[in-house]
Amino acid sequence: MNKNILVTAEEMKNVFYKILVRHDFDEQKALRCAEIFTETSVDGVYTHGVNRFPVFIEYVQKKYVNPHAETVLKNAFGGLEQWDGNLGVGPLNALKATERATHLATQHGIGCVALSNTNHWMRGGTYGWKAAKAGFVFIGWTNTIANMPAWNAIDTRLGNNPMVIALPFNEEAIVLDMATSQFSFGALEKFILTGEELPVYGGFNEKGELTKDPAAIYKTRRSLPIGYWKGAGLSLLLDLLATILSSGLSVSEISQREIEYGLSQVFIAIDTSKLMNHSAIKKTIAKIIDDYHQSISIDGTQKILFPGERVLATRKKNLDTGIPVLKTIWEKILSL
Amino acid sequence: MNKNILVTAEEMKNVFYKILVRHDFDEQKALRCAEIFTETSVDGVYTHGVNRFPVFIEYVQKKYVNPHAETVLKNAFGGLEQWDGNLGVGPLNALKATERATHLATQHGIGCVALSNTNHWMRGGTYGWKAAKAGFVFIGWTNTIANMPAWNAIDTRLGNNPMVIALPFNEEAIVLDMATSQFSFGALEKFILTGEELPVYGGFNEKGELTKDPAAIYKTRRSLPIGYWKGAGLSLLLDLLATILSSGLSVSEISQREIEYGLSQVFIAIDTSKLMNHSAIKKTIAKIIDDYHQSISIDGTQKILFPGERVLATRKKNLDTGIPVLKTIWEKILSL
Repeated sequence: MNKNILVTAEEMKNVFYKILVRHDFDEQKALRCAEIFTETSVDGVYTHGVNRFPVFIEYVQKKYVNPHAETVLKNAFGGLEQWDGNLGVGPLNALKATERATHLATQHGIGCVALSNTNHWMRGGTYGWKAAKAGFVFIGWTNTIANMPAWNAIDTRLGNNPMVIALPFNEEAIVLDMATSQFSFGALEKFILTGEELPVYGGFNEKGELTKDPAAIYKTRRSLPIGYWKGAGLSLLLDLLATILSSGLSVSEISQREIEYGLSQVFIAIDTSKLMNHSAIKKTIAKIIDDYHQSISIDGTQKILFPGERVLATRKKNLDTGIPVLKTIWEKILSL
Repeated sequence: MNKNILVTAEEMKNVFYKILVRHDFDEQKALRCAEIFTETSVDGVYTHGVNRFPVFIEYVQKKYVNPHAETVLKNAFGGLEQWDGNLGVGPLNALKATERATHLATQHGIGCVALSNTNHWMRGGTYGWKAAKAGFVFIGWTNTIANMPAWNAIDTRLGNNPMVIALPFNEEAIVLDMATSQFSFGALEKFILTGEELPVYGGFNEKGELTKDPAAIYKTRRSLPIGYWKGAGLSLLLDLLATILSSGLSVSEISQREIEYGLSQVFIAIDTSKLMNHSAIKKTIAKIIDDYHQSISIDGTQKILFPGERVLATRKKNLDTGIPVLKTIWEKILSL
């Protein structure tokens, strides 16, 4: 039986680190990359943390991801910069772009870094948390391989292009990390495995009807954009902006490749301290969240959480008692 | 019987202009404001154009909107600025903020103007079209009075906070103009009037079930966020950012007033000419749109349109044959 085992964050990071070093990462890159995969797992986003790690290593082995590549500045004007990711390590490229955007924000009030030829950034929220905990407002997004049809269409020509919006909150952050599809194919897989129905419509079945059956959507590939025509439009616009701002590849061009690599991403940071003092901002945010928390839940007892709020409880639990990992996955990782 | 009559754009603009001048607008403001309401109507967004004009005049009469007010700079650092709208004319304040953001983008690559104490900007798309036709990428949003519950909540503490993303396309633009609710209450009213069912779920009925019945949603006020929990999260984040960037009022604070005024808005412009030459950008966008247009529609014949594409046909038709206006509405306007 495939059971969860508990792995401490320290152990997970060390295991990742050693594997990365064995796969030709220099020590500093191995450490940062191990930290990101571990933090993502600590935060409970296993799909883009520990569960994804073996696939990530496979991409390194197949040379889709080049651990020696460095991001290179292509164009710069004031607070706006264009960098080439040179098919380097997605999370490290994205982290550098985030740090650069916050640096530009410090200099110009607002900074925007567009990154071409990069790779999957794993959990987009990572960059929102980093920027927000450093005190910045963050808006970022990535394009993806085509995995969603346009509205009223049956063939998948849009990416689900996740976007992240984040801002500081007390010592932590409020982080929205959402794809423009209602459920990712990874999420559909999880529902299929557990035999559960989706909580809301997630796409179309073979008859062209909206359905909550994850297997039916998996078969048609017709996943549902959030808000129907709205999410489809949002997806198209995020791809257009990522592509022209980075001078990188579009969803359409990425989808002509055998697998998803060479993505285009945008990282915008705003330095709010240039507008208002820290304690005034803190007070304003606290007031909004206080009001939000007064929402009356459907069942009268449930606490209404803001985006990122659940993460804090998961993080505490996983740091206290260990990160739950499927035994088979951990064994696979130990064999890498 | 309430029929549509056809009014030429020129006539509409002149009528609006004269009414605005009678309501104490100076000539230049009256002209710009008349143009915006007319262009919005020409583009087929009647709810925020001609149909809204009488309500707009009522707000001027009741002094919620002050035609003499000017936007004033509060704080500036590099490409980031904070302006006070002083409860002036919403569309004129928003237009000034858009022009200022594009000016900042020309100087710093990217520019952000946050505007407090402003009023309803009518059609958000107006500012996307203006910025994009001037050659800029545009991202903007506004907060609103509370009109949507948080996810899993029953009371309305979120605004539907429309956002706009736009970029140039040939001599025109691609403009996404979307609220974070699936349908606005204005849209629900239209469905109620025509006796039609909503095409997709739009909110909850009194039993707490998702429904396509516009009247049921109108009654409960429980409108549906796009993508359920996702749109609710997006709405909260857009309000948080608009409020802290502008040092203005939040959805919660606006909702303590008897009507919706004193909003917070954000206008971001990016000057892509600093990164890539005009013809290369044009080519890149055309390639993405070409691919998008190759989408196979459900019925096999329908053309799949990008956000803003339908507007071009409506605009041509309304300029050629006149703008359709409900007779009762036009009579009301002529009596103002």
